[in-house]
Amino acid sequence: MILTRPILEINLTNLLNNFKMLQKLAPKAASAGVVKDDAYGLGAVKVAGLLYTKGGCRNFFVAHAVEGEKVASVAPEAKIFVLQGYGEDSREVFERVPNLIPVISNPSMFDYYKQHRLNGRKPVIHIETGLNRLGFRENELERLSDSDRNEFMMVMSHLACADEKDHFMNEHQLNNFKRLKEQYFPRLPASLSASDGVFLGGDFLQDVVRLGAAMYGINTAPYRENQMQNVVRVTAPVLQVEDLPEGEFVGYSATYRANSRRKICIISIGYGDGIPRSLSNVGKVFFKVGGQLHEARMIGRISMDNIICDVTGIEGLQSGDTAYLCDSFYTLDDMGRDAGTISYEIMSRLGKNTRFIRRYTEE
Amino acid sequence: MILTRPILEINLTNLLNNFKMLQKLAPKAASAGVVKDDAYGLGAVKVAGLLYTKGGCRNFFVAHAVEGEKVASVAPEAKIFVLQGYGEDSREVFERVPNLIPVISNPSMFDYYKQHRLNGRKPVIHIETGLNRLGFRENELERLSDSDRNEFMMVMSHLACADEKDHFMNEHQLNNFKRLKEQYFPRLPASLSASDGVFLGGDFLQDVVRLGAAMYGINTAPYRENQMQNVVRVTAPVLQVEDLPEGEFVGYSATYRANSRRKICIISIGYGDGIPRSLSNVGKVFFKVGGQLHEARMIGRISMDNIICDVTGIEGLQSGDTAYLCDSFYTLDDMGRDAGTISYEIMSRLGKNTRFIRRYTEE
Repeated sequence: MILTRPILEINLTNLLNNFKMLQKLAPKAASAGVVKDDAYGLGAVKVAGLLYTKGGCRNFFVAHAVEGEKVASVAPEAKIFVLQGYGEDSREVFERVPNLIPVISNPSMFDYYKQHRLNGRKPVIHIETGLNRLGFRENELERLSDSDRNEFMMVMSHLACADEKDHFMNEHQLNNFKRLKEQYFPRLPASLSASDGVFLGGDFLQDVVRLGAAMYGINTAPYRENQMQNVVRVTAPVLQVEDLPEGEFVGYSATYRANSRRKICIISIGYGDGIPRSLSNVGKVFFKVGGQLHEARMIGRISMDNIICDVTGIEGLQSGDTAYLCDSFYTLDDMGRDAGTISYEIMSRLGKNTRFIRRYTEE
Repeated sequence: MILTRPILEINLTNLLNNFKMLQKLAPKAASAGVVKDDAYGLGAVKVAGLLYTKGGCRNFFVAHAVEGEKVASVAPEAKIFVLQGYGEDSREVFERVPNLIPVISNPSMFDYYKQHRLNGRKPVIHIETGLNRLGFRENELERLSDSDRNEFMMVMSHLACADEKDHFMNEHQLNNFKRLKEQYFPRLPASLSASDGVFLGGDFLQDVVRLGAAMYGINTAPYRENQMQNVVRVTAPVLQVEDLPEGEFVGYSATYRANSRRKICIISIGYGDGIPRSLSNVGKVFFKVGGQLHEARMIGRISMDNIICDVTGIEGLQSGDTAYLCDSFYTLDDMGRDAGTISYEIMSRLGKNTRFIRRYTEE
């Protein structure tokens, strides 16, 4: 069969299983689904809808209010926390969508909030404990009045190195968090950990855990085997299979030269679909032919719409066969490592091209 | 003013000027707009509509039929060539949209075409001349019958190294193209060059030039100063400005350590918005304060939604100020070089996140 389009498959059963497995690691905490960046590219409406209806999830985190509005459409009774906070370019959305809760990360934003309160909602305060990204610094907390501190409904922070179990930063941040919370917000519920922090357990769990990357199948505890089920499969059809004579060059800028006679195939996916161009001459591609899994190498530069693969020795491959770019046997974590980045970045790119045939599967 | 959302601005006036400037380089050829990958992320409907109504453009190239369908909605009288060709997963779209013209790149696809002809349309044949990507190889052309060769309305190929003026591959491919066209399709119109080939001039121009990257402002002739006007501006608001004490770490995995007291700011954009994570600890960010342009450095790892910048020495910077990620003074080509990739890849990513406030400007 002749085919031309790449396919992105998202296994919702595995995603839900991952969510439930993570919940079990933090049984006393409320589990929030992190669906920012369109659920890391996998589709916030679909993922949030699933977590809401089948996972009983009633707390979500997004980065931007416009993202939260989509989530609200499928999670009407949920609280949706907006990490980038509240400002002139998002106030209208906050006013329109009553379940959006701003996370206030600095004094200027807090001043803005006090001038434009959202009736019936208290915001979250984000405090800085060592990541040095968003959040009130200690000297800024000191300047809050008693009534200021009563404005908030939860206190949160974020860990920098929770994917390394024994990193000194973990204890350092936990101690900072406990101390600052005790001093300034002793009665508020607290949230410190995302998926990676959940695997650290104990006091890292606090009252609300924010489940994102691991739910999507990413190994956020890479110091041991991945506990999560695979969620993402990316495939693309083989457009053509050709002999490549010795001495020929392949791809833009002729970065690959055939030093012996090779067999190549051209597949219908490229960096325009989110495959990192840094995989050029490095990345792996897999084919199932004759009931067996074959591993091949990308050769030449990845282009916007196509990748060329060295399939020498893979017998019987033909137009219309399926190339596997990522699956349970070669996960996004593997691809991230080979591409010199992390799976998060690749996942976030993959889901955004509308040229993909996108399939959500449930078993 | 407190703001939270990044902004993507696309200057349609400059884009149209670029198109017209490229047309002048190939006055005898028909100019086709390359709007695949959603016009390199900038919005195919908007770009194709502009080229059609204000540029008189009547030929477009896309990668996939589903992309072509969107273009057809704003370019009803145009021919829209589909580079990835024709297959079982796109036939329905081809049948529905009469201005889509498949580009046939190999014998298997041609067999499929002959079983499922599209009435009233002849396809294009893609021939391979040295890129070793899509296209009929010479031994495959030899096997075409006379009547097979009469099936086509145009012959095309694609250059591998046209961004290097004196690369041996350019002449090699041109000679192959002329020879194969003369032998197999002497009477057909021909297309060989994309933007980069247009700058090579002469016989590289043939009958149809495919104007893409350079139209979007990319320097496709990097052996000299960019002739194109800048099309893309990316900005993000400053969320907060903070002192960073000596000895503090910044970002995930603590990859940056302050060896002296610094001032930092956190801006509301990240790899989720398409800023390459490979710019971590490397990338540049610009600020206009006090009527002056200031250059700053990204520090720590880029995260999904935020970037941290070292703004030591930039006086007066505050929440709500604008960070410039790319503009005429620091183009996508510059960012691509700093990120270890090419502007094409970054452009393709930027346009795809719906969290951006997207603005099309016309002067």
